[in-house]
Amino acid sequence: MRLGIVGNSDYGGLPDVMQRLRALVPQLGMSLALEPPLLPFLSDADVFDEHTEVDAVLSLGGDGTLLRAARLLDDRAAPILGVNLGRLGFLTSCDADGLEEGVRRLVERDYHAEPRMALRAAAVDASGRVHARWRSLNDVVLHKGGFARVVRFAVWVDGEPIGAFAADGVVVATPTGSTAYSLSAGGPIVVPTVESIVLTAVSPHTLAIRPLVLPPTAELRLMADDGPEELLVTLDGQPGTTLGESETLVIHRAATPVLIVRFADSSFFARLRTKMGWGGLSERDE
Amino acid sequence: MRLGIVGNSDYGGLPDVMQRLRALVPQLGMSLALEPPLLPFLSDADVFDEHTEVDAVLSLGGDGTLLRAARLLDDRAAPILGVNLGRLGFLTSCDADGLEEGVRRLVERDYHAEPRMALRAAAVDASGRVHARWRSLNDVVLHKGGFARVVRFAVWVDGEPIGAFAADGVVVATPTGSTAYSLSAGGPIVVPTVESIVLTAVSPHTLAIRPLVLPPTAELRLMADDGPEELLVTLDGQPGTTLGESETLVIHRAATPVLIVRFADSSFFARLRTKMGWGGLSERDE
Amino acid sequence: MRLGIVGNSDYGGLPDVMQRLRALVPQLGMSLALEPPLLPFLSDADVFDEHTEVDAVLSLGGDGTLLRAARLLDDRAAPILGVNLGRLGFLTSCDADGLEEGVRRLVERDYHAEPRMALRAAAVDASGRVHARWRSLNDVVLHKGGFARVVRFAVWVDGEPIGAFAADGVVVATPTGSTAYSLSAGGPIVVPTVESIVLTAVSPHTLAIRPLVLPPTAELRLMADDGPEELLVTLDGQPGTTLGESETLVIHRAATPVLIVRFADSSFFARLRTKMGWGGLSERDE
Amino acid sequence: MRLGIVGNSDYGGLPDVMQRLRALVPQLGMSLALEPPLLPFLSDADVFDEHTEVDAVLSLGGDGTLLRAARLLDDRAAPILGVNLGRLGFLTSCDADGLEEGVRRLVERDYHAEPRMALRAAAVDASGRVHARWRSLNDVVLHKGGFARVVRFAVWVDGEPIGAFAADGVVVATPTGSTAYSLSAGGPIVVPTVESIVLTAVSPHTLAIRPLVLPPTAELRLMADDGPEELLVTLDGQPGTTLGESETLVIHRAATPVLIVRFADSSFFARLRTKMGWGGLSERDE
Repeated sequence: MRLGIVGNSDYGGLPDVMQRLRALVPQLGMSLALEPPLLPFLSDADVFDEHTEVDAVLSLGGDGTLLRAARLLDDRAAPILGVNLGRLGFLTSCDADGLEEGVRRLVERDYHAEPRMALRAAAVDASGRVHARWRSLNDVVLHKGGFARVVRFAVWVDGEPIGAFAADGVVVATPTGSTAYSLSAGGPIVVPTVESIVLTAVSPHTLAIRPLVLPPTAELRLMADDGPEELLVTLDGQPGTTLGESETLVIHRAATPVLIVRFADSSFFARLRTKMGWGGLSERDE
Repeated sequence: MRLGIVGNSDYGGLPDVMQRLRALVPQLGMSLALEPPLLPFLSDADVFDEHTEVDAVLSLGGDGTLLRAARLLDDRAAPILGVNLGRLGFLTSCDADGLEEGVRRLVERDYHAEPRMALRAAAVDASGRVHARWRSLNDVVLHKGGFARVVRFAVWVDGEPIGAFAADGVVVATPTGSTAYSLSAGGPIVVPTVESIVLTAVSPHTLAIRPLVLPPTAELRLMADDGPEELLVTLDGQPGTTLGESETLVIHRAATPVLIVRFADSSFFARLRTKMGWGGLSERDE
Repeated sequence: MRLGIVGNSDYGGLPDVMQRLRALVPQLGMSLALEPPLLPFLSDADVFDEHTEVDAVLSLGGDGTLLRAARLLDDRAAPILGVNLGRLGFLTSCDADGLEEGVRRLVERDYHAEPRMALRAAAVDASGRVHARWRSLNDVVLHKGGFARVVRFAVWVDGEPIGAFAADGVVVATPTGSTAYSLSAGGPIVVPTVESIVLTAVSPHTLAIRPLVLPPTAELRLMADDGPEELLVTLDGQPGTTLGESETLVIHRAATPVLIVRFADSSFFARLRTKMGWGGLSERDE
Repeated sequence: MRLGIVGNSDYGGLPDVMQRLRALVPQLGMSLALEPPLLPFLSDADVFDEHTEVDAVLSLGGDGTLLRAARLLDDRAAPILGVNLGRLGFLTSCDADGLEEGVRRLVERDYHAEPRMALRAAAVDASGRVHARWRSLNDVVLHKGGFARVVRFAVWVDGEPIGAFAADGVVVATPTGSTAYSLSAGGPIVVPTVESIVLTAVSPHTLAIRPLVLPPTAELRLMADDGPEELLVTLDGQPGTTLGESETLVIHRAATPVLIVRFADSSFFARLRTKMGWGGLSERDE
């Protein structure tokens, strides 16, 4: 089995985990491909990039690291095992302590692959030419940039104009992304198995707007409604591109879901309570 | 074809519509069954009640009238044609002007039946005995009553406790109900085709709670978390029952959806803009 | 000095505090007047009721107990020392440990009296007759009752109609009450020294409504906009009265503020963080 | 009387108003000073800039134009008469039709000057040196820029740290600004006479945060809580400066209020209803 490795060296535990991982290689008869920044840990390993064929991916860090692994995979269907090096994540599969057991079960295919719907976004110019294209597991955000003044956004769903409104931005999120930036903008929490696309305006200038939960099959088109404003596209919180005045951002469900390795029934609600205190850890009395 | 008729006499247009409907009976070779309050309009008609077998239902009024028709049908699968006598509704199929054409197409089965997920709710006592049971198309609400002080609600999803929090109430809504009371309580707007159950706390006493979009297959159990408080259950805004301290409200998707008659592509977003001004009719400038 | 005593026997620490308080009487040369439920603790004490003249009040319990003490005082200007028997309160002055020192400083007038704006509310019938009248430190709420359907509320400020909207209720809160029910309904947190009246609709049926912060001098009039609906009035979370269809609820600033005893600079923001986790105790990472 | 003129040429009515204004000069015995872009309309007029002494200012445009006039005046106490060339504004004093009467009454001092609290903001470096300084009538916003990732903001009020949280930005608004960007970020509407400072986080990453209404005397200090992130400062929606990692944004009430010319009782609530549909223009039925 060929394992791609992605890791975030901001976590102090990374060197130890890399060392233990190296020890596992001969035991489990697997080979490793590493993101370039990880190569110093294992100098004879191959590079893991957007062309490498891998059977599975190991993400060493937090949810953000796993999101990066998913972007790197793009439409390749390899499952991702997230080893959590920090606080509890929504997406990680085990803690650092569980590294050896986790990797062994991965190699033995003794796990459940939880499919998470992803989004495919493309920046398209007036002639229909695609100038940028991404897959994201959390969200695609179209946002005014820097000191920009009020921008009006126009939104189409399946070819129908559904609204045009002034706002700071528009968040298009998967259920997985519903607990990330979409939530900050006022969106609902969507249980991951409810395939859907959540559309939420960021700081809208009208009172009469509310988050929308759209079918997973919807095709969304977003653009600036008026004028020469240049907009910014971010994917899972990472810079994507700028969107010029005659360009449109087209978003729909990605062809392949992201496959998250799970070893046992993982309770979404338990993670919600632990990570966000949902449902009343700190109530007021009387 | 046997047609059940439900109507709201608060709308001034009802007598005219009933008269025109009477004229259609011989032309279309159908028979009518009327809710008791409508019998004066057509003294020789049968009564339409919870036991009457009907092939379709005509709802004369607004969305509230159609919700009542759906409750009356309970699990019977007859489609409902809503003739709108007031302002644009989300659920109605045509205006009063379209009565004759609408009924003829209904009889000729020249329409699309749009299935709308409904909820089945039951009040269950400690011994498992069901003491009340309803189907609702919009929502089931568990609410503190009258002058009651703070109540703590406990919520389970598929047997897992997901939270316990002080609030005025809890709204459990279908996508259809997402634009009704659930929206007032801060819930998202869910496009009707996204089968799901929306759980929203009403005036929660904790800051750390947000609306949840759950799978349509989820079974919810709601009860008072502490003490002897008597709670109220309402269904689609109508009184249901009181829920005693040892009782639980169990909610899941109803076995049969409500079938709404549609004659043409009906745009959910157009209704959203017209009824609620969603997406910026009244924006602020500068 | 004559001290009125109010206490909540739901707190287990009450008997001990009452016993220590009894020991303080001869030392400090004060006399006590007790709420009737507390008389068993000190059988020879006077009764503290709405007519008793007292120089100060001791509230033994939590914020709810102190709110009750303030209602009992009505317009009498005696300062209230809140001895906190439970979790940190917004209004209490010291913990049970600090009882002796707190009472001694109260008797020696070695404290700061923090004035908190209160509200005066009255239910007035069509002929102008007042049939009920209260002072509240937190809030006055006009609410639909029981199974009641949608109610439309009409609101006037200083004689000007400012809006009529369907909702579950309307909260009129002081700055002190802005962290109580008003917050649950979506209102802002108002620092106690910003004298003002906060008006917040509870679950409004229109999207286009937001909490309003009004001048402390405003006179508000609230009533049902349409029809025979009977409404409920609650004061600081306690039952007030029902409001009939031709009656109006009139609310303005109370003539006298509630005086809260403070022994040192008390940080409103520290209480906000501790009680409600305001400002980010439980943030999401990545 | 010397009148400073500010105008927005995006409004088609500007040339006509400038022509009529020129005709008024000899009649009313006044002199005009014009913003440089307006000089072509009246070639012999003086320039109106940040040093010009004027007795009053005429703002020709909308609320945005008047905000610009107020920034240009800075601490000079001249009253501003806003002639509204577009849709109803919150701040304008009369329509274009009322130009002649408005200016005559201004010259005759036959008006009411409504004082509106303004904010004074300064960017201060680690050594206490002020590198930029502004007055704003609506708001001061500290915001992450461009593609920036999550930023943590730290906020102090009168020297006390009140919170540190991840967000897109922080809005500090006057009551006048409470109906502008602050409202988009979820802040309350504050009636202009309630002097106060409204602090609202933009898309906070924690659930446990709510808008705060602070005393007008509060001094706020805002900065990035962690790291080298460069932040952007905007004033009334206009670019201010960037704020480096060791710099602090200090905000307090401006020494002088902005004086808005009013000719009659102007109802804040009527403007609220007309501009924003506050209080239920578009309600849902049933």
